Amino acid sequence: MATWLAISAGDVTGIGPEVTLKALAAELGANDTRYLILGDPTYFQPLNAKLGLDIRPFTGYESSGRIFLLDPRDAALPEHLESGSPIAARAALDWLRDAAKRCLLQEVAGMVTAPLNKESVIRSGQPFVGQTEFLSKLAGASRTAMMLLGHDDRGRWLRVALATTHVPIKDVAGRLQQDRIELAIELAAEACVELGLGRARIGVCGLNPHAGEGGEFGSEEITTIGPAVEAVRSRGIDAVGPFAADTLFYHVLQGEYDAVVAMYHDQGLVPLKMVAFETGVNWTLGLPFIRTSPDHGTAYDLVGKDAANPSSMRAAIRLANSLARR
Amino acid sequence: MATWLAISAGDVTGIGPEVTLKALAAELGANDTRYLILGDPTYFQPLNAKLGLDIRPFTGYESSGRIFLLDPRDAALPEHLESGSPIAARAALDWLRDAAKRCLLQEVAGMVTAPLNKESVIRSGQPFVGQTEFLSKLAGASRTAMMLLGHDDRGRWLRVALATTHVPIKDVAGRLQQDRIELAIELAAEACVELGLGRARIGVCGLNPHAGEGGEFGSEEITTIGPAVEAVRSRGIDAVGPFAADTLFYHVLQGEYDAVVAMYHDQGLVPLKMVAFETGVNWTLGLPFIRTSPDHGTAYDLVGKDAANPSSMRAAIRLANSLARR
Repeated sequence: MATWLAISAGDVTGIGPEVTLKALAAELGANDTRYLILGDPTYFQPLNAKLGLDIRPFTGYESSGRIFLLDPRDAALPEHLESGSPIAARAALDWLRDAAKRCLLQEVAGMVTAPLNKESVIRSGQPFVGQTEFLSKLAGASRTAMMLLGHDDRGRWLRVALATTHVPIKDVAGRLQQDRIELAIELAAEACVELGLGRARIGVCGLNPHAGEGGEFGSEEITTIGPAVEAVRSRGIDAVGPFAADTLFYHVLQGEYDAVVAMYHDQGLVPLKMVAFETGVNWTLGLPFIRTSPDHGTAYDLVGKDAANPSSMRAAIRLANSLARR
Repeated sequence: MATWLAISAGDVTGIGPEVTLKALAAELGANDTRYLILGDPTYFQPLNAKLGLDIRPFTGYESSGRIFLLDPRDAALPEHLESGSPIAARAALDWLRDAAKRCLLQEVAGMVTAPLNKESVIRSGQPFVGQTEFLSKLAGASRTAMMLLGHDDRGRWLRVALATTHVPIKDVAGRLQQDRIELAIELAAEACVELGLGRARIGVCGLNPHAGEGGEFGSEEITTIGPAVEAVRSRGIDAVGPFAADTLFYHVLQGEYDAVVAMYHDQGLVPLKMVAFETGVNWTLGLPFIRTSPDHGTAYDLVGKDAANPSSMRAAIRLANSLARR
């Protein structure tokens, strides 16, 4: 039986449709996976015609073909919506929800989500933190974490799980919880296994400069992060830290750790994206299904210029395939 | 007249003496600079004998020779002090102070500071935040900022000035001030000129994930950082931002900016040290004299093993020389 992956189109006024089709064109030859895009045909047809992808309307999982398109909504979107249109933002969430349901029903092996814009979604009147949080809630999965993966141009991998995600810096210390840190470490270690790595050594960042330098620049390393590392170690996980993040990432790039747990967004994503911008991919750990996504946004300024780089979307599709096929 | 640089020995129970002498052995041939080490001979003599450096007791700036040693303190240190000894910590500050005074008196063209350990200094009963802050106070220079510079193994430079330094994450947002950000940007732009770069384009980081994403994840970009960028631009400085830090550093590594202003320690130092760990050097901007230092600490665990890597100390000596000789 063929492997199926769902792809939610995201905000169609952004570069989602473009990177999706460009990425599929490049990845189609890698295996026999079939793709179900949840989105509006109007926003895929022009590039489909150009790339000659033979996208078919979805009529069931037994149809022949490789790429299928379905809009589960009642009405088609108006053409030529402006960037960040609330209509597009609402549609994006409908497609995201539909893709997740197909995952939960095990109709598809996993999903890849094209980008949407958080501001646009919030402006459209829907409470929203991020796709990851949305999917966690939908799946009833409270024990999730975001992992970003990518490699530099010498093939050195960085894999970073986050203990907190889209949290303002002023709130990070207050939001840091020992059980969330333990969870991020555990999920990162499981991820190494699911990726088929031979080892799962996890380096854990401190929160503060120099990991607090013994309590001089903050105490969360002593009160919260250190105990989390001890707790997971007692459960057999090969985690070490907390370390000063600026030193840890150097050692990670030398291959001394298989994954890192960062305490907040920029601590982990700044080093990762700096060297792995084009290969970076987002993997939601702890969901009951596979979900990957590119690590970039809607890039409204690039739309319609045929200028969007599909490499991160390709990496997302590749990772979803590789996890689905293990 | 010869160029003189002072080198403060730092904590002699750490790797300071070792990296200092190894670095001098490697850099001595680069020019005719003379070096005055402020430190205790006992802790330099063994390695000096091994490296054959011909270190002479300092008797005045007209003496012949290349490397001189002086302990301005009344009494020599006991031999075999234990790691982080408070006696060593107090001596380190005395040497730091002496080197700075020679700079202020323009007896020497600048100073390079070997590492000391903040915890050890604080434990020795002296209020202390860092060498940079200590020197700023001594020089009566309130308008200083820390810049870290280094290049990756392909020669791509990162230059990062910090708007806040050794501040616990929970306090960063509260400490962020528009005038300090403006200062960091201005000093970074001046630094580009002093380095002889042909351009001084400064990329400014946001504080929050995605630079706050329009206020959704924090508002400091709107209330504080954006106005700082506008203010310096109105004074003719080529600064842009605030940008999401995880995207900005990718563009920096591509050469699109000459320096970055990061809002806090790890935001700037994690990406820098990851790719420029061995070449990273600390430059204190805004002092009335040149001051550079390696970007590592005392590494007590490496002492006595001949295992310390002098490359960052070499970079610090090289940078001080290059600034002194422009």
